[in-house]
Amino acid sequence: MTTQRPPRSAEEQARLDDTYRELFERMIAFNQLLGMKVGTLDPDGSTIRFDMRAELIGHYPTGRLHGGVIASVLDATGGLALMCAIADKHRDESAAQVMTRFGRFGTIDLRTDFLRPGIGQHFLATGRVTRLGGRIGSAQMTLENEAGTLIATGSAAYLVG
Amino acid sequence: MTTQRPPRSAEEQARLDDTYRELFERMIAFNQLLGMKVGTLDPDGSTIRFDMRAELIGHYPTGRLHGGVIASVLDATGGLALMCAIADKHRDESAAQVMTRFGRFGTIDLRTDFLRPGIGQHFLATGRVTRLGGRIGSAQMTLENEAGTLIATGSAAYLVG
Amino acid sequence: MTTQRPPRSAEEQARLDDTYRELFERMIAFNQLLGMKVGTLDPDGSTIRFDMRAELIGHYPTGRLHGGVIASVLDATGGLALMCAIADKHRDESAAQVMTRFGRFGTIDLRTDFLRPGIGQHFLATGRVTRLGGRIGSAQMTLENEAGTLIATGSAAYLVG
Amino acid sequence: MTTQRPPRSAEEQARLDDTYRELFERMIAFNQLLGMKVGTLDPDGSTIRFDMRAELIGHYPTGRLHGGVIASVLDATGGLALMCAIADKHRDESAAQVMTRFGRFGTIDLRTDFLRPGIGQHFLATGRVTRLGGRIGSAQMTLENEAGTLIATGSAAYLVG
Repeated sequence: MTTQRPPRSAEEQARLDDTYRELFERMIAFNQLLGMKVGTLDPDGSTIRFDMRAELIGHYPTGRLHGGVIASVLDATGGLALMCAIADKHRDESAAQVMTRFGRFGTIDLRTDFLRPGIGQHFLATGRVTRLGGRIGSAQMTLENEAGTLIATGSAAYLVG
Repeated sequence: MTTQRPPRSAEEQARLDDTYRELFERMIAFNQLLGMKVGTLDPDGSTIRFDMRAELIGHYPTGRLHGGVIASVLDATGGLALMCAIADKHRDESAAQVMTRFGRFGTIDLRTDFLRPGIGQHFLATGRVTRLGGRIGSAQMTLENEAGTLIATGSAAYLVG
Repeated sequence: MTTQRPPRSAEEQARLDDTYRELFERMIAFNQLLGMKVGTLDPDGSTIRFDMRAELIGHYPTGRLHGGVIASVLDATGGLALMCAIADKHRDESAAQVMTRFGRFGTIDLRTDFLRPGIGQHFLATGRVTRLGGRIGSAQMTLENEAGTLIATGSAAYLVG
Repeated sequence: MTTQRPPRSAEEQARLDDTYRELFERMIAFNQLLGMKVGTLDPDGSTIRFDMRAELIGHYPTGRLHGGVIASVLDATGGLALMCAIADKHRDESAAQVMTRFGRFGTIDLRTDFLRPGIGQHFLATGRVTRLGGRIGSAQMTLENEAGTLIATGSAAYLVG
C-alpha cells in the first residue's frame, strides 16, 4: 500500500480536476445536452448540478423532471465519485496516467429510487463511494433540489479495471 | 371481473392508441428530446424505438449510448406497457376515461443492467408487464440494436393507482 | 395534518415496541430461523442484529455469510424502519390501532449491494426511511460486522397502505 | 474462440454436474438450510426447486414465503446459470479445472421484485444468463409455484473472473 513516489503536486491535481470537468461537462455529449456541471470532486461527496429546462420534463401537467434525467445524472455522479477515489488511490500518478485507467470504466448496473416529484429550478446530485476494489466499484447517490428536498436516491456498480 | 358494458370499439381503441403516441412522443418533452417513437402497443411487448445521434453518446472514444439514455428509454417503455395493460383491464372505457387513470402514475424505482456497449444506428426497447395490481405495476424491459444484440435489460415498479 | 388527540403514552409506546419485537423476532418464522434480534426502533436508524452461525454460510471455503442471509436481514430492517415511521406518523394511535395498518404491508422490491465478504461474529443491520407516502415507502439499509466494516447496502420499496 | 482440445466427455460432464449439485445442495450451508435442490443445469434455464416449510414463512397470518427466502433462491439460481455458462465456454476443461475458476466468484448485486404472494407447496426458480464477460456475468431469474404463478423476478450481476 505504500508508494515510493511522492503524491501529485497541487498543480498536477488541478490539471486532473480540469480534465475530469472537461470529460464530464463536454466530452460526454449527453451530459452536455442535459447541462451537467461538475461541482465538488471528492470520493465521499462528488457533486454535479444542473438547471431545470423545459426539455427535461417528463410529466407534462406538473413540470417534473423525467425519471431518465434523474437516472442519467445519478449514473454520472456515481461514476465521478469513483474516478475521484481512483485518483486518490493512485495519488502518485500524473493526471495523464490516471486518465489511462478509464479505458474499461463503465456502469454495470444502476438502481434509481424516485422518492418525490422532480420539481425545482436547480438540482444537485451527490455521489459517495461505498467500495473500490480492483475490478468493481460501488457508489450511492442522491438528488436534491435547491430547497434541499430529497428527490431521488441511486445505487450503482461500476467496472473500474 | 365481468363487465356489463361492451369493449371499446376499434375506432375508440385507435383514438386511445393515438393519445398514447402523442403522450409518449410529444407531450413528454424529454422523450421528444431523445427522439423516442412508439411502435407496438401491447402489455406483453410494447416497443419504443429511437435512432443514434451524436448528442446521445456517453462514451466519447467509442460512440456508445449514454447509460442515462438507456435508462430513460427503458423507463418509458415499461410505463407504456403498463398503460397498455391498464387499457386492456378497463376495455369497456373510452380513451378519455382511460386517460383519467394516470393522474398518479409514476415510476417508483428502476433497475438497469448495462450488458453490452450501446453501439448501433437504431435501437428498439421492448416492455412486458409482469404484474398489474390495483396500486403497483411491474415491468421488465430490454434494449436491442438493429442487429438484435441485447444491450440492456431493466426492471421497474410503477405506481398505477 | 394536526390531530386533536394526544400522542400515545410512554406505556403505550412500550407496548408497541414489544409488539414489534415479538413480530420481528418470533412471529416471522424465517427471521427467527436466522436469529434476528431487534435493537433500536427509530425511523432514522432501526437496527437488527444477528450472530454468525454455520448454517448461514454461503461460501464454504471462507465462511462468509450467504448473500441471501444479507438480503433477508436488510429486507426486514428496512421494513422495521418503515413500521417505526408509520408509528410516528400516527402517534395518537394505540399499539393495537397501529398494528391494524400492516394488513397490506409488504416489500415491493429490494436491491442488495454485496460490497465486502460477510465475515464476522456479530452483524448489525441499520435501516433508514427515505420516503413515507400514503401508499409507498422507501428505505435504505446497511450491514456491518462487529468491526464496523461495511459489508452490504440495500434499497427497497414497500407497499405501506 | 476455437479450441484445439476436444470437449469434455459425457462422463466428465456428469462428474461436473454432480460437483455442481454437491456444491449447491450441501456445501453451501444456507442453501441446505433452505432445502434447495438443483434441477436442470443449463445457462438458458438452470433450475432450483424447494418446498414450503413453516420455517420459511415471512408473513405469519397468510403463510407466505419470506422475501429473503425468495432473494436467497434467486441469487443461487442466477449463480448456478452462470456456472453452467462458464462450463460451456470452457467445454474442453475437466470438471476439476472448471471448479478452479470459481475462486473469485460472487454476487455483486441483486434486485428482487416481489410480484405476488409466495404461496404454494413447491417452488421452482429458473435462471437465465444475459451476459457472460471475462469479469462480469449477469442473469435474470424467476420464481414460480407449482401452479405456475409468477411469484418473483430477479436480476443480478456476478463477478466471474
